[in-house]
Amino acid sequence: MRHGALVIDDVAEPTPGAGQVLVRTLACGICGSDLHTLRHGDEMVEMAEESGGSMAGMSTVVMQLDRDVVMGHEFCAEVLELGANVGNCAVGDIVVSLPVTLDPAGVHPLGYSNEYPGGFGERMVLSDFLTIKVPNGLAPRLAALTEPMAVGHHAVERSIIAPGDAAIVLGCGPVGLAVIAALALKGIEPIVAADFSATRRALATRMGAHEVVDPREEPAIDAWRRTDGRQQLVIFEAVGVPGMIDEAMKAAPPQSQIVVVGVCMQSDTIRPMRGVTKELSMQFVFGYDPTEFKETLDRIADGRIDVTPLITGTVPIAGVPQAFTDLADPDQHAKILVEPA
Amino acid sequence: MRHGALVIDDVAEPTPGAGQVLVRTLACGICGSDLHTLRHGDEMVEMAEESGGSMAGMSTVVMQLDRDVVMGHEFCAEVLELGANVGNCAVGDIVVSLPVTLDPAGVHPLGYSNEYPGGFGERMVLSDFLTIKVPNGLAPRLAALTEPMAVGHHAVERSIIAPGDAAIVLGCGPVGLAVIAALALKGIEPIVAADFSATRRALATRMGAHEVVDPREEPAIDAWRRTDGRQQLVIFEAVGVPGMIDEAMKAAPPQSQIVVVGVCMQSDTIRPMRGVTKELSMQFVFGYDPTEFKETLDRIADGRIDVTPLITGTVPIAGVPQAFTDLADPDQHAKILVEPA
Repeated sequence: MRHGALVIDDVAEPTPGAGQVLVRTLACGICGSDLHTLRHGDEMVEMAEESGGSMAGMSTVVMQLDRDVVMGHEFCAEVLELGANVGNCAVGDIVVSLPVTLDPAGVHPLGYSNEYPGGFGERMVLSDFLTIKVPNGLAPRLAALTEPMAVGHHAVERSIIAPGDAAIVLGCGPVGLAVIAALALKGIEPIVAADFSATRRALATRMGAHEVVDPREEPAIDAWRRTDGRQQLVIFEAVGVPGMIDEAMKAAPPQSQIVVVGVCMQSDTIRPMRGVTKELSMQFVFGYDPTEFKETLDRIADGRIDVTPLITGTVPIAGVPQAFTDLADPDQHAKILVEPA
Repeated sequence: MRHGALVIDDVAEPTPGAGQVLVRTLACGICGSDLHTLRHGDEMVEMAEESGGSMAGMSTVVMQLDRDVVMGHEFCAEVLELGANVGNCAVGDIVVSLPVTLDPAGVHPLGYSNEYPGGFGERMVLSDFLTIKVPNGLAPRLAALTEPMAVGHHAVERSIIAPGDAAIVLGCGPVGLAVIAALALKGIEPIVAADFSATRRALATRMGAHEVVDPREEPAIDAWRRTDGRQQLVIFEAVGVPGMIDEAMKAAPPQSQIVVVGVCMQSDTIRPMRGVTKELSMQFVFGYDPTEFKETLDRIADGRIDVTPLITGTVPIAGVPQAFTDLADPDQHAKILVEPA
């Protein structure tokens, strides 16, 4: 990303410092946040600066938009070269990593950094201690889904939901689908999912949703009332466009929780009275912790989560700009992977 | 309230049915919600209808604005007459009650009902089983503060706050002061409170706030950073005007909670990204449960909460319209009591 546009260019090869390793990217997913960043990068930086670069409670070095950024934070990579004081990785290891690299200057979020290139490039530098070896000979394409699936795992863990409760998932893009997979693994039933796209509704069913609706035909809350209507309800807002939070607040039954996992960069309007009269709670969530990240990799590697159907396309680096355009059409795609090699 | 205006008139004397008692009002506080209702009654009714009249999870009979409503829900009263099947009250008892009366048609919120007059009238009909005898010879004026102080108790109980955590209270009207009193009793330190009014800041200190600021001189979050800055923080939003929730979200440190106890009837604008990047949680609260109500009465009766300084005026029924006007000036008043006798 250069001055708010996607360009393909050669950049200097990064070199690993102490505690770091040089890797070559095998596969890296394109995330909705990447599309957001291209369109609303200034608002994202404003928010990041306001919160001290806070990402899930961790203070990071905020990128500057007038300098180059190599995006891509959902990656699987092969270790090429070790820096000094490295004890976790070996050359040739296939690894995933939390998408941050640490150095004496601070914590750099991979994919949103001027200092460290992200996974849409051929080479990255990772912090050795944050890398996790991909187990079971899991294909790098599937391992690259660890990051987005971990977002769903974290959202479910940060919510109040427990077996015996019900869930509604608004939006079945990659984030919503990751939430559904984590809910299904937790034994939540029913999971009611809603999306305008038939393709994404079919994926929601494959990830474990029990009831899937087109909200133009039946609102998710009505489908929940029809299939359950009595259990404690948690609504996961995974659309991330203005108006969705208030819509969730309007639909929510008394004492229910709304988990905001969709990233709405713009200003949004709510009616606080909807929350007050029904005593709603709202949990905003972001990212995951290292344990959730590792658990998600294991869930994919041992087959508890089958991410294969989520991968709807792969492109080389040259195909990234077109892939960004294609991802705007939800009926065609869920996750497109960049394979730089 | 008749067609959106306050009028003083005689209405039919209510009669107690089975399980009900007739009482004469001794003292009844004027609440911010009463002022809101006069100005935004239509929005209040719209919200109540949307949620099935939900009040703290309980479904109630929603008032009609084209019919008379005798407001007043913060009362202490004397029992005059018993209906059939009454076993809790005796004639002459001084009582408080949760502000709802039950009959075969449903749950009627006192002060917001066309069927049952509230405490700004001389007579009310209460549900016998909901009445609580005022202990320790507590003065009715002070007992009438049970309801608003219970709102603060509930807000604190519904929050995640625990000893060892810190609190900010935005707004030191009766609701904010009730929150401060409940926080102080829970051993929370520091309690940082903010209000534009010097009178209300002085009351905040009397109720137990450790640090009280005029937000024009020092934002509450800065005062918290100066005095603490490290403990888990819960921010209580007790102002209830548009913009306050977003302001709290902007000020909140990562992983903190915002408790929305101020009732903002209008639409409001937030930046969801503020919540996402900092993983904020938000709890909307309303009312109290019967246990919290009873505990609050006991706290006032045994002197753990001294509500005397909160009572800044008393008026007869004829003085209610002027009192509504006076309450718009926060530097003059906290709580005005109506004494119909």
